[in-house]
Amino acid sequence: MSTSADTKEREEGLAFQPKFDASGLLTCVATDAVTGDVLMVAHMNEEALRKTIASGDVWYFSRSRNALWRKGETSGQTQRVVEMRMDCDQDAVWIRVEQQGAACHTGRHSCFYRMIDAADGGTRLSFIDADRQFDPAEVYSKQT
Amino acid sequence: MSTSADTKEREEGLAFQPKFDASGLLTCVATDAVTGDVLMVAHMNEEALRKTIASGDVWYFSRSRNALWRKGETSGQTQRVVEMRMDCDQDAVWIRVEQQGAACHTGRHSCFYRMIDAADGGTRLSFIDADRQFDPAEVYSKQT
Repeated sequence: MSTSADTKEREEGLAFQPKFDASGLLTCVATDAVTGDVLMVAHMNEEALRKTIASGDVWYFSRSRNALWRKGETSGQTQRVVEMRMDCDQDAVWIRVEQQGAACHTGRHSCFYRMIDAADGGTRLSFIDADRQFDPAEVYSKQT
Repeated sequence: MSTSADTKEREEGLAFQPKFDASGLLTCVATDAVTGDVLMVAHMNEEALRKTIASGDVWYFSRSRNALWRKGETSGQTQRVVEMRMDCDQDAVWIRVEQQGAACHTGRHSCFYRMIDAADGGTRLSFIDADRQFDPAEVYSKQT
């Protein structure tokens, strides 16, 4: 097949052809199935993607720890798949999840707890939805 | 500062410290401010981020074309910023946008127009919200 035919098949076809990057990863966006909020952006390798589809529990691949990871396995803040969608070129996945508790390792519901403000004196952040649902020091220290 | 103090400042501080990857890029998730749907996942370099904040029009950096790009400059399908948020480690941005028309180059409102189905015989995709709002052949051919 030509490159252009490949592209057309990938974009318009119904074959599942995830396009992993040079590191073997896809980008994943998890949103809260109830509120629609973006909870987190993370990555999946082929195994994480396969386990997520097979189990309905969300698995990621941690680039910093270079390890497969079931979301919530340490913190208890698991994610159940409600719906998974693939994007046009099949290199990004959108997962609508049922989030148990908080998605962020800082204890917040979403990782996106700060807004970008373009003030006169330069760009700053400001807190929004920044209440913690758990104390990370307590939750993660139990596991060490 | 120690690495741990750096991390704490990046996660809990209000200083805008975007963490670009080795290619100089951040990951951006654009959602429809009205429906909450994820429209697309793309990237920004420092200049795209700066122009987006300054203008309120969304700019991205295209990895395939290696070029800065104002969303909609070819297709007319622009995005206006409603709100921008930064994630915990400041390497991903969530932008709620007012989408003019369709976000996807295939003519669909969102790039995520296919669901992942785990059927018995293997994983497949199925169309969802796949109506085209414009004909890409027509829209993009005007510019060549």
